[in-house]
Amino acid sequence: MLISGEKESVTLQTLSLAELRQKIRVNAYTGSTSGLAPGYLQANLVMLPADWANDFLLFCQKNPVACPLIGVTEPGSPFLAEIGADIDISRDVPEYHVFYNGQFETSVSDLSEHWRDDLVIFVLGCSFSFEEALIQSGLTVRNIEQGRNVSMYDTQIACQPAGRFSGNMVVSMRPFTPKDAIRAIQITSRYPKAHGAPVHFGDPTAIGIRDINTPNYGEAVDIFDGEVPVFWACGVTPQNVIRQSKPPICITHAPGKMLITDLLNNALSVL
Amino acid sequence: MLISGEKESVTLQTLSLAELRQKIRVNAYTGSTSGLAPGYLQANLVMLPADWANDFLLFCQKNPVACPLIGVTEPGSPFLAEIGADIDISRDVPEYHVFYNGQFETSVSDLSEHWRDDLVIFVLGCSFSFEEALIQSGLTVRNIEQGRNVSMYDTQIACQPAGRFSGNMVVSMRPFTPKDAIRAIQITSRYPKAHGAPVHFGDPTAIGIRDINTPNYGEAVDIFDGEVPVFWACGVTPQNVIRQSKPPICITHAPGKMLITDLLNNALSVL
Repeated sequence: MLISGEKESVTLQTLSLAELRQKIRVNAYTGSTSGLAPGYLQANLVMLPADWANDFLLFCQKNPVACPLIGVTEPGSPFLAEIGADIDISRDVPEYHVFYNGQFETSVSDLSEHWRDDLVIFVLGCSFSFEEALIQSGLTVRNIEQGRNVSMYDTQIACQPAGRFSGNMVVSMRPFTPKDAIRAIQITSRYPKAHGAPVHFGDPTAIGIRDINTPNYGEAVDIFDGEVPVFWACGVTPQNVIRQSKPPICITHAPGKMLITDLLNNALSVL
Repeated sequence: MLISGEKESVTLQTLSLAELRQKIRVNAYTGSTSGLAPGYLQANLVMLPADWANDFLLFCQKNPVACPLIGVTEPGSPFLAEIGADIDISRDVPEYHVFYNGQFETSVSDLSEHWRDDLVIFVLGCSFSFEEALIQSGLTVRNIEQGRNVSMYDTQIACQPAGRFSGNMVVSMRPFTPKDAIRAIQITSRYPKAHGAPVHFGDPTAIGIRDINTPNYGEAVDIFDGEVPVFWACGVTPQNVIRQSKPPICITHAPGKMLITDLLNNALSVL
């Protein structure tokens, strides 16, 4: 889950969106997409068999902060015109995680061995969209500053159950001074399709996080004196829910390695 | 500075805005205006001699969060049509504070003895406007719940100096759970003319407040387990600045006893 070395990123950032997507499609790049294709919406993915899709659709409807739905494919189709005409969602992600019966099975860069004609793909908003807005407003996003994957934690915040899906919310954490946290709350409130405003700040134990220095996903970042941790709902939540709900197959993106769409981040902002 | 007893408030709240204003004008009511005339904008006041007015106008321009300017009168006039045709600002406030050479001199309910023909009145937005919005969104405002004047504190947050005016910001404090604080930040951001978003939350010492239980103005309120203090810029800031700047005369409202205008709170909201 490490983001790519700076040298590689610099090279990647000179590529056009089409060139970058091609590089990912042929598995010439399998790293983090953090900071790549600036301005373009990156998405979390959940793929489920059609007979599990209605339950998950309802789960997204009941948990829009953790699972902000951008789009849903037809069963068996890896295409979704509304996010980009040339996108093949089964090939255009640097790395996928494959789960069988709720258990993590394998990481792959190509889904050809696991694809099924009944798979429905859910495309969900991602906090990368608001990180860009935070930086453009002059705030420092610690995980980006430190070149690390964002810190993510299992919590005891229960999601609203839907059909066979239930479980707790996963959150991402970014530390800020109170003054910057207030500004970050204002900015991220404009991005409801990218998890929107934080769900908590301050005491980690209040939401069931025992050790802020040991994230369940991603990497730890420094929290400096005078800063408070600020927590946003995270698109890894479905992966936590799937472990408990045990669908026969589920495929997701690997954390930090997103689908880059043709949509603009700013097209998703409100206010 | 105690707000009026509940029995009196209930009676006052049955009055029309015109009736309430008349009661205040004849000094039949000299208490807090918190919770009175719901929906109508209440204002902080600063009155200064004309030869100090330009400096204060610049101070408001440089410190719009503490001093959100609604309007300014012509020298010697207690009227300002844009806030209400029938308002006499020199009579329609329950209690005024009069300062000579930066020193508090007296509290009065009638300005006839202190009025000067060169006085310019600055009408400034007040947090009562956003308290109403917080309550309408289902949040509990502790000072209102506990029937106390809001807690206000001198801080070490320096205002931008302007001409002869300089000094530190005064803040008001309301405790919330982090979840409600996030919502309160969203709501108050919509009211830039009523101090807008908070300037700080959490550790009081970070902004120079030594003892959260001993406010410099108003009254202490309970802060319960799991709550954090949230601090907004306060319209008492000018009174702090005046103590240091020592104009020959300055008249303000008494904290908590505001000018009730004909403007609607919601007319001041943005977004």
